[in-house]
Parts: sequence; structure tokens; C-alpha cells
Amino acid sequence: MKILLIGATGTLGTAVHKTLTSRGHDILTVGRGGGDLRCDLTDPAQITDLYERAGQLDAVVSAAGDVPFKPVTELTPDDHLAAFRGKVLSQIELVRQGIPRVAERGSFTLITGVLAREPIPTGAAASMANGAVEAFVRAAAIEIAPQRINAISPTVFTESLADYGDYFPGMPPVDLADVAQAYVRSVEGAQTGQVYAL
Amino acid sequence: MKILLIGATGTLGTAVHKTLTSRGHDILTVGRGGGDLRCDLTDPAQITDLYERAGQLDAVVSAAGDVPFKPVTELTPDDHLAAFRGKVLSQIELVRQGIPRVAERGSFTLITGVLAREPIPTGAAASMANGAVEAFVRAAAIEIAPQRINAISPTVFTESLADYGDYFPGMPPVDLADVAQAYVRSVEGAQTGQVYAL
Ligand SMILES: NC(=O)c1ccc[n+]([C@@H]2O[C@H](COP(=O)([O-])OP(=O)(O)OC[C@H]3O[C@@H](n4cnc5c(N)ncnc54)[C@H](OP(=O)(O)O)[C@@H]3O)[C@@H](O)[C@H]2O)c1
Ligand SMILES: NC(=O)c1ccc[n+]([C@@H]2O[C@H](COP(=O)([O-])OP(=O)(O)OC[C@H]3O[C@@H](n4cnc5c(N)ncnc54)[C@H](OP(=O)(O)O)[C@@H]3O)[C@@H](O)[C@H]2O)c1
Repeated sequence: MKILLIGATGTLGTAVHKTLTSRGHDILTVGRGGGDLRCDLTDPAQITDLYERAGQLDAVVSAAGDVPFKPVTELTPDDHLAAFRGKVLSQIELVRQGIPRVAERGSFTLITGVLAREPIPTGAAASMANGAVEAFVRAAAIEIAPQRINAISPTVFTESLADYGDYFPGMPPVDLADVAQAYVRSVEGAQTGQVYAL
Repeated sequence: MKILLIGATGTLGTAVHKTLTSRGHDILTVGRGGGDLRCDLTDPAQITDLYERAGQLDAVVSAAGDVPFKPVTELTPDDHLAAFRGKVLSQIELVRQGIPRVAERGSFTLITGVLAREPIPTGAAASMANGAVEAFVRAAAIEIAPQRINAISPTVFTESLADYGDYFPGMPPVDLADVAQAYVRSVEGAQTGQVYAL
């Protein structure tokens, strides 16, 4: 399959790239600062341009997202708007503009995270963003069929424990290789409207 | 208890007002176009002004919210932003600014809806908004304790079937009197971080 992979230069994106390549797929990598194609997903015009350059696709896969972490009393309206633009609207617009560019039975796979269901202090904007994307995925699925859409909702990555482990005391981490398999399941499987929690 | 009720002039707000009054509470009603105090929740400065006029409170209860309904392919970034401002950011900012105004063991009760978990066509922005608020409620709860926060997540109201029933084929409606009891449970009970689905 020809797959557009957003956030390909990140921790998660690198692992997803490796796994999808090993499955024989043809990957177009996208990032703000690196990759085959450059695109800032927070700008709808750049998404239009991205799809124009990418051509016809079988799947769109996102491993991107940016949200502020602060105590809930310090999260201003601008912080919540930044979370909304950086993880929610960016991925939603990637889907909306992608619908005419993706194959009839193609798929979208978005990234959320465990904070949608298991909160941590300073994570309220991240929780909000993940909850928004997961509900959107369930809703979009019933309208875009036979195209499919799923969300990958992982806990902290084993490979990110050095950076973020202190925020997840006692919560079992997940290996990036297992998260990448959830992307395979979404792209090559037949399910839709699913939130793969791992 | 002294309770600030937002959206008091609406279908739901009217029922919540009646039930909370019958429980002996002292209610300050708030709406854009009516009520004891006027406030447009989408403007953070008006929320500041609202709390200044309201004085010390025991509970803040929201029955307000406004989101656009359109096919998912027609929901533009501006539509999603309108849903975000009209139901998510409005209620989140009501909580953030309310924290210093509400009693130490006081509570916040926000409104979401069934579309967070059960989608309908044209409801993707509403689903997104409800999912965002429900995840925020779980996250905020662990940071604001001993203050409490819960969400009320009802299906279509029996009293709204004439207007919206066609969008919910075969889904059992809920009577406003039962939804109002969920507000009582949130305000007078001791639970926090809950999403009361009914
Ligand atoms: N790390 C974890 O433990 C963990 C756990 C659960 C969920 N997640 C989620 O997984 C996702 C990726 O996390 P990560 O740790 O791999 O992050 P990361 O290493 O910081 O990588 C993020 C990637 O997304 C790209 N990106 C960010 N904003 C973008 C935008 N507006 N437009 C285009 N590309 C953008 C970045 O590109 P540039 O570098 O070029 O800007 C980068 O390639 C995030 O949504 C995160 O919340 C992470
Ligand atoms: N109706 C249903 O079957 C149903 C089912 C599940 C969930 N819900 C949710 O329940 C909530 C109330 O629904 P409803 O049917 O009672 O709606 P409604 O009759 O239209 O009432 C909405 C109320 O919210 C107020 N409001 C709206 N935007 C506001 C803002 N920016 N600032 C301040 N007040 C604002 C309105 O005041 P003004 O009129 O003065 O503007 C009005 O009092 C909504 O969030 C809705 O999604 C409804």
C-alpha cells in the first residue's frame, strides 16, 4: 500500500515507519522539519498542498501531536486552544481533506493516548485532546465507510520512560514495537471506529 | 447550597432549575439572553465578571452548550473551532475561573451527551466536543480535590424527541426529570471524576 505517515521523524513515527516498511508498504514520510514532504498540520492550507504533492493514497497514518502540560489551574484558554489545534483539529483536518485522496477502502489511523482514560497531574489538556480525537474517530467511522478510521491509544512508551516515566508511576509501559503492530492492525485489518488501547 | 446554574433558560436548564430548587437550594440562573445574571461563556472576560457578581458559591452547574451539526466532510476547521469554543473551552474556563470562587468541598457539574460514545451522522463535532469534556472532567478531578467535578452525559431527552428524535432511531430517550436527578447526584453526592451516562 502507498501510505502517508505524518510525524515520521518522531519517536513513535520512526518505529511505525520501520514496521510498515518491513511489511512491504511504500511510505511517504511527513514532518514539520524533516521527511519526504514538509507540512505543518496546524495549517489547513499546508494540508491541501501536502495531499496535492502526495497523490493517490491507500492509507494515512498519523504519529504527530503537540499539547502543553501544566497544572489545570494554569492551563489558559490559549493553552487549550494550542492543544486543540496541535492534536485535534490538525488530525481531523488531515482526515477531512484526505477523504477524496484515499482509496475507496483505504484508512486513516490517528494517534491519541492513555490520558484519555487515565489522567495524570498536569495532563488535563492532553486528556481533553485525546478524548476529543477518540470520540471523533467513532463518529467519523459511520460516515466515511467503506473508508475506515481508527485511533491508537497507547500508554507511555518503554522507550520514553527516561523522559516521562516519572509522570506514570506504576503504570505498565508499552514497547514501541507493540504500538507499531496496532498501526499494522488498523491499516491492514478491516475494523473501523476502533480505539486500540495498549 | 448556593448554586450557579448556566443555561438556566434552556430545555435542560429549566428542568435542573426546578429540581434543584425543590431540593431547597438557592439558585443563581445564568444565560446569554435571560436569567439573574447574563454571561456568554465563550468570552473568558464575561466569565470573570460573572464570578465577581455571583460571589462565593457551593456549586457550579452547567446545562449550556452549542455545537454545529453537519456531514463530517462539510465540518470545516471553523465549525470544529465553534464546537470547541461553544461546548468545551466555555465549560473548561467556567471551571478554571470558578476554582477560587467555589467552596473547598464544592463541585462543578458539566454537560456532555451520548454522542461521546454513540455516534450519529452529522454529529462528529458534537461527539468530539463531548469526548473532550468527559476526558477533561476525569483529568481535572484528580487535581482539584477536595473540590469535585463530574459530567452528565444523557441520550436524547424525551422532551426533545419532537425536535431531534429522527436522529436517534431506536435509541431509548431519557426523561428530563431523570437527567435532573443526575445533577442532584453530582451536586449533593461525594463522587468526582465521574461521567453519569443516562
Ligand atoms: N512518548 C510517549 O510515551 C507517548 C505515549 C502515548 C502517546 N503519545 C503520543 O504519540 C504522538 C507522538 O509522540 P512522540 O513521543 O513520538 O513525539 P515526538 O518524538 O515529539 O514526535 C512528534 C512528531 O510529530 C511531528 N509533529 C508535531 N507537530 C506537528 C505538526 N503540527 N505538523 C506536522 N508534524 C508535526 C514532529 O515533527 P517535527 O519534529 O518535524 O516537528 C515529529 O515527527 C504524540 O501525539 C503523543 O502525544 C506519546
Ligand atoms: N436536547 C437533548 O436531547 C440533549 C441530549 C443530550 C445532551 N444535550 C446537551 O444539553 C445541553 C443543553 O441542551 P438543551 O436542549 O437544553 O439546549 P437549549 O434548550 O438550546 O438551551 C441551551 C442553554 O444554554 C445557554 N447557552 C448556550 N450557549 C451559551 C453560551 N455561550 N453562554 C451562556 N449560555 C449559553 C442558552 O442560553 P441562551 O438561550 O440565552 O443563549 C440556553 O439557556 C447542550 O449542551 C446539549 O448538547 C441535549
